[in-house]
Amino acid sequence: MGYELKSARYLARDVLERAVQPGDTVIDATMGNGHDTLMLCEAVGPEGKVYAFDIQEAAVKETGKLLLVHGMADRARLIHSGHEHMREFAEEPVQAVVFNLGWLPGGDHSVTTHWETTSCAVQAALELLKPGGVLVICAYPGHAEGDRERKELPGLLSSLSNREYNVLRQQFLNAGIGAPECFVVQKLTVASE
Amino acid sequence: MGYELKSARYLARDVLERAVQPGDTVIDATMGNGHDTLMLCEAVGPEGKVYAFDIQEAAVKETGKLLLVHGMADRARLIHSGHEHMREFAEEPVQAVVFNLGWLPGGDHSVTTHWETTSCAVQAALELLKPGGVLVICAYPGHAEGDRERKELPGLLSSLSNREYNVLRQQFLNAGIGAPECFVVQKLTVASE
Repeated sequence: MGYELKSARYLARDVLERAVQPGDTVIDATMGNGHDTLMLCEAVGPEGKVYAFDIQEAAVKETGKLLLVHGMADRARLIHSGHEHMREFAEEPVQAVVFNLGWLPGGDHSVTTHWETTSCAVQAALELLKPGGVLVICAYPGHAEGDRERKELPGLLSSLSNREYNVLRQQFLNAGIGAPECFVVQKLTVASE
Repeated sequence: MGYELKSARYLARDVLERAVQPGDTVIDATMGNGHDTLMLCEAVGPEGKVYAFDIQEAAVKETGKLLLVHGMADRARLIHSGHEHMREFAEEPVQAVVFNLGWLPGGDHSVTTHWETTSCAVQAALELLKPGGVLVICAYPGHAEGDRERKELPGLLSSLSNREYNVLRQQFLNAGIGAPECFVVQKLTVASE
């Protein structure tokens, strides 16, 4: 098929598939239905490790089942806690952190990520990144909290020093106002002058 | 090295390398120093074809030399004309069109692309794209005309029907106000409902 420009979700996947190598330690900050957790487990291989977070017990259970079916349960630590606490669990530098903001697909729409905790978690993720490591965030402005996250994220990420991080914003210009965006932050391997 | 997030220029190259296959017909709308023309000649292979445009004779000459050195001269048609006339030369559908806006590197900085002609050329390029084909544009807001192009492009591209095209804008948020941006438009293979 070759190159196909699809959605923020696909851009995020593409970056993660290229950035994560066997043996890496990575974080899924929004476990949700576990699809990213599974993909990350596959990418890090038997020597790697995935920390995955969710405040919803249903998400943790579903993800656990999904990993078991695929024989990947031993590569992941599933943590029933808010992602703003990620540094209490993952203390070593990581190659990637992924946020898929918003609510659990098929779940309770009143339970969503919130900017207050998302912003803390993003800061924690930035501090955990290894040189060359990436933070990948999909934001969904189709609901009130998601709209706020999409509005606040550019300000937070723009303020990062370009001697330490590269920050990319990816918008689908003609996809409607509710269209998701994908942000990618890479920690530089050598600080620029 | 794995994934590396660098600049608009690298994003553009990455898309072209993935989207262009041997045998394709493509267009370099801004020949400049010929680096993109050469890369496209390599990508389309001996069965493919590259149309390349520039209004500066120096650019056409330099590019001709570069292609000769690399044994690629027979894959390209170098056209000393403004890119807004591309449909007079390339009448068949193409897989890719690349615009690297601004002035010729190392050349006369008073000779730059201008929105009046750039916008016509972009429209022509959109009409020339095959289904699945891509338009890749790097815009440089570091000078007056470039700034205008960077401001006008989102409006033009946002107005494209999302039943016909996907449009991606890629900005480096913390790279300073003069930082280049990369726009990618893909013509859909099947019109969406």
